[in-house]
Amino acid sequence: MLYQVNMTVNLPPDMPVEIAEEIKGKEKAYALDLQRQGKWLHLWRVAGRYENLSIFDVDSHDELHSLLSGLPLFPFMDIRVTALSRHPSALK
Amino acid sequence: MLYQVNMTVNLPPDMPVEIAEEIKGKEKAYALDLQRQGKWLHLWRVAGRYENLSIFDVDSHDELHSLLSGLPLFPFMDIRVTALSRHPSALK
Amino acid sequence: MLYQVNMTVNLPPDMPVEIAEEIKGKEKAYALDLQRQGKWLHLWRVAGRYENLSIFDVDSHDELHSLLSGLPLFPFMDIRVTALSRHPSALK
Amino acid sequence: MLYQVNMTVNLPPDMPVEIAEEIKGKEKAYALDLQRQGKWLHLWRVAGRYENLSIFDVDSHDELHSLLSGLPLFPFMDIRVTALSRHPSALK
Amino acid sequence: MLYQVNMTVNLPPDMPVEIAEEIKGKEKAYALDLQRQGKWLHLWRVAGRYENLSIFDVDSHDELHSLLSGLPLFPFMDIRVTALSRHPSALK
Amino acid sequence: MLYQVNMTVNLPPDMPVEIAEEIKGKEKAYALDLQRQGKWLHLWRVAGRYENLSIFDVDSHDELHSLLSGLPLFPFMDIRVTALSRHPSALK
Amino acid sequence: MLYQVNMTVNLPPDMPVEIAEEIKGKEKAYALDLQRQGKWLHLWRVAGRYENLSIFDVDSHDELHSLLSGLPLFPFMDIRVTALSRHPSALK
Amino acid sequence: MLYQVNMTVNLPPDMPVEIAEEIKGKEKAYALDLQRQGKWLHLWRVAGRYENLSIFDVDSHDELHSLLSGLPLFPFMDIRVTALSRHPSALK
Amino acid sequence: MLYQVNMTVNLPPDMPVEIAEEIKGKEKAYALDLQRQGKWLHLWRVAGRYENLSIFDVDSHDELHSLLSGLPLFPFMDIRVTALSRHPSALK
Amino acid sequence: MLYQVNMTVNLPPDMPVEIAEEIKGKEKAYALDLQRQGKWLHLWRVAGRYENLSIFDVDSHDELHSLLSGLPLFPFMDIRVTALSRHPSALK
Repeated sequence: MLYQVNMTVNLPPDMPVEIAEEIKGKEKAYALDLQRQGKWLHLWRVAGRYENLSIFDVDSHDELHSLLSGLPLFPFMDIRVTALSRHPSALK
Repeated sequence: MLYQVNMTVNLPPDMPVEIAEEIKGKEKAYALDLQRQGKWLHLWRVAGRYENLSIFDVDSHDELHSLLSGLPLFPFMDIRVTALSRHPSALK
Repeated sequence: MLYQVNMTVNLPPDMPVEIAEEIKGKEKAYALDLQRQGKWLHLWRVAGRYENLSIFDVDSHDELHSLLSGLPLFPFMDIRVTALSRHPSALK
Repeated sequence: MLYQVNMTVNLPPDMPVEIAEEIKGKEKAYALDLQRQGKWLHLWRVAGRYENLSIFDVDSHDELHSLLSGLPLFPFMDIRVTALSRHPSALK
Repeated sequence: MLYQVNMTVNLPPDMPVEIAEEIKGKEKAYALDLQRQGKWLHLWRVAGRYENLSIFDVDSHDELHSLLSGLPLFPFMDIRVTALSRHPSALK
Repeated sequence: MLYQVNMTVNLPPDMPVEIAEEIKGKEKAYALDLQRQGKWLHLWRVAGRYENLSIFDVDSHDELHSLLSGLPLFPFMDIRVTALSRHPSALK
Repeated sequence: MLYQVNMTVNLPPDMPVEIAEEIKGKEKAYALDLQRQGKWLHLWRVAGRYENLSIFDVDSHDELHSLLSGLPLFPFMDIRVTALSRHPSALK
Repeated sequence: MLYQVNMTVNLPPDMPVEIAEEIKGKEKAYALDLQRQGKWLHLWRVAGRYENLSIFDVDSHDELHSLLSGLPLFPFMDIRVTALSRHPSALK
Repeated sequence: MLYQVNMTVNLPPDMPVEIAEEIKGKEKAYALDLQRQGKWLHLWRVAGRYENLSIFDVDSHDELHSLLSGLPLFPFMDIRVTALSRHPSALK
Repeated sequence: MLYQVNMTVNLPPDMPVEIAEEIKGKEKAYALDLQRQGKWLHLWRVAGRYENLSIFDVDSHDELHSLLSGLPLFPFMDIRVTALSRHPSALK
């Protein structure tokens, strides 16, 4: 099942650079791993913003929440989830 | 270049059913054609709503506007466009 | 899987009473049937408004959208869907 | 009487982890206790967010406020309450 | 129990004056009757708007919804309900 | 003249408890005094929130602002004021 | 006492021109009269919009509501009222 | 002086096509004329929407309002005006 | 030319009182000076809020921005500017 | 291709002045350089605010995001991007 997920990142302005870099490094590894597993289907940057538009393909709401709440940047993110269903005019 | 496009449809409540069906039929043909051309990359239904989330892959803003304003349902739609760029953690 | 569904009804002010009553009658039968099937788990009225808060228990986003778009009042409703997952502090 | 209660948690980013864990532990015990008493009827996680949708079943607004303001996480929550009444199409 | 109720009236611009007057007449009688019963505790006009701020004193959400949905102007109103509890600094 | 006043309190999360308690104590005394003078006519708690709905009865906007800006919690409050006039269907 | 009043006009698109002109003529006469009486202290057009910013100087909320609800365009206006008090840094 | 002007067009869905075309034709002539005079400095289409972003260069608010309220589509537009001043980092 | 200017002040809660008083003192002197020059035409307090409604009368957007960005409280204010033009029904 | 870019700056109130000045100096040099390259086509100040309206002329969403995320003030900005296409009534 597909979910639209919008993630906006708000790092505290006084977070030390090396801590921020460490978290971002873990986030990237985490994101690449989920993409390789086919669960994080698409990941795009919203131009001009520290925000992404993602499509997740998972089996249940519980699996989705488990994956999202495990994001290293989760405590610093505002996340919005939208359930997507098949469109009657979709080719695929 | 990729664009997130959200389309929400608002048909006038007094539109005769056969007119609505005719416009929807044209809309479907138009959507299938653009998907076959590879320009309308993804088309998902927002669950529970007469709304879709689409990803377009076109060469310019002008081409995008031309395609969208040609939608048979365009006069009855509220459309929002967001420019998407490559994400540094994207696998693809 | 559970979904929070908020439905707000907006009937056109010039809809004849007998048409409105007929649609509402069909809506009630449809709602009762889905509740008996266990798919429409809870149905509450938001006090003071022509709006409800519902919990659906279905197998997929597609099944949810199919059920919601089949509502007799669907053309006159604004519907919002929220995916609900298990809460770690929930007793059940 | 039933109330829809939405709780969104915003912990200060500089709160020490052990303090946060201690408050969350108390919150969980408090939530389990109210659920066992039948006052906190439902507790669901909004997928992807540090937010829940709850249904409370209490005798009065005063009892509701007393229970909510006693939540260990209350100072860090944004809470919205909606009064729910019986729906004429509800099976139960 | 006390409820804050905000009612905003939107009459269709093409409603004939005599129909509007008839509904308003019934509304006034209904409002006076509920005030005499002590259920509609306060009724104030929001200055400059076709809107009121009301305080209801009723036994349950169901009674409140029953009274509000019986308002002759109900089909033309947007109503918001807020549950009010006792304030620890209130004199009364 | 009557004014609807909504006050939402936002104490800084790092304010020491004894300072917060001292301010709240002064606030309560201040509120009781104005109620005894008949200027703070009603004071209700919005259920589930650190927010109140108040009705003030004072002679002028200047008097209202003077009373509100003198609230011990004023620097930590978001306040909204609405002018209320007599409703033609009000019993009183 | 001074009140900020924002009026936005929304005439129905199918209102006959001569009716609209007649109402606007009455509105102008009404506005000029209240200005001459010193009750409608300032009247400015918000550039680019069918909207005005006004300052009223009247004795009470009731008088304000009476004047505003008597506006010939009142049924077609969205009006917002804000109570203004003396500013401690004002020269006058 | 420069002004950002956003215009969103909302034609009534039941406006006859030939009337709409006539108004749009006049609008285009009007827009071209103001551009030739150097008063309508820039005119861009917001991609995917019946909306534009414009920059006007006129001598006063009054001149701006006079030009905008003279637009043939003015009765069907929602217009927002923002005053623009020189930016200290602007090259020109 | 006239401009509506809304200023809302948000001082950091941890700003020392003597610093706040010093800035406010400079702000008052600055405001009085501009009023004496006839540039800050009106200055009213929004009742119940640390916010004002002002009318400026200056020659250009640049002059307005220069005056506003020179306000001692400017770094702690949220400011909204609206261009005002002559109203056809204004007496003056 | 043209993009409308709105940038709002929010510097932390406790940022030392010399750090703020250093970042602003780099920002100005960066802005001037991009304007000289013809990529930052227009840069205007929104009157009364620490905000600008900019028009960028770049080849792709990726180039735009690269330029914007390289802004020295980027971590302290809220940025909104809107894709602009050619308007059929534009002279140029």
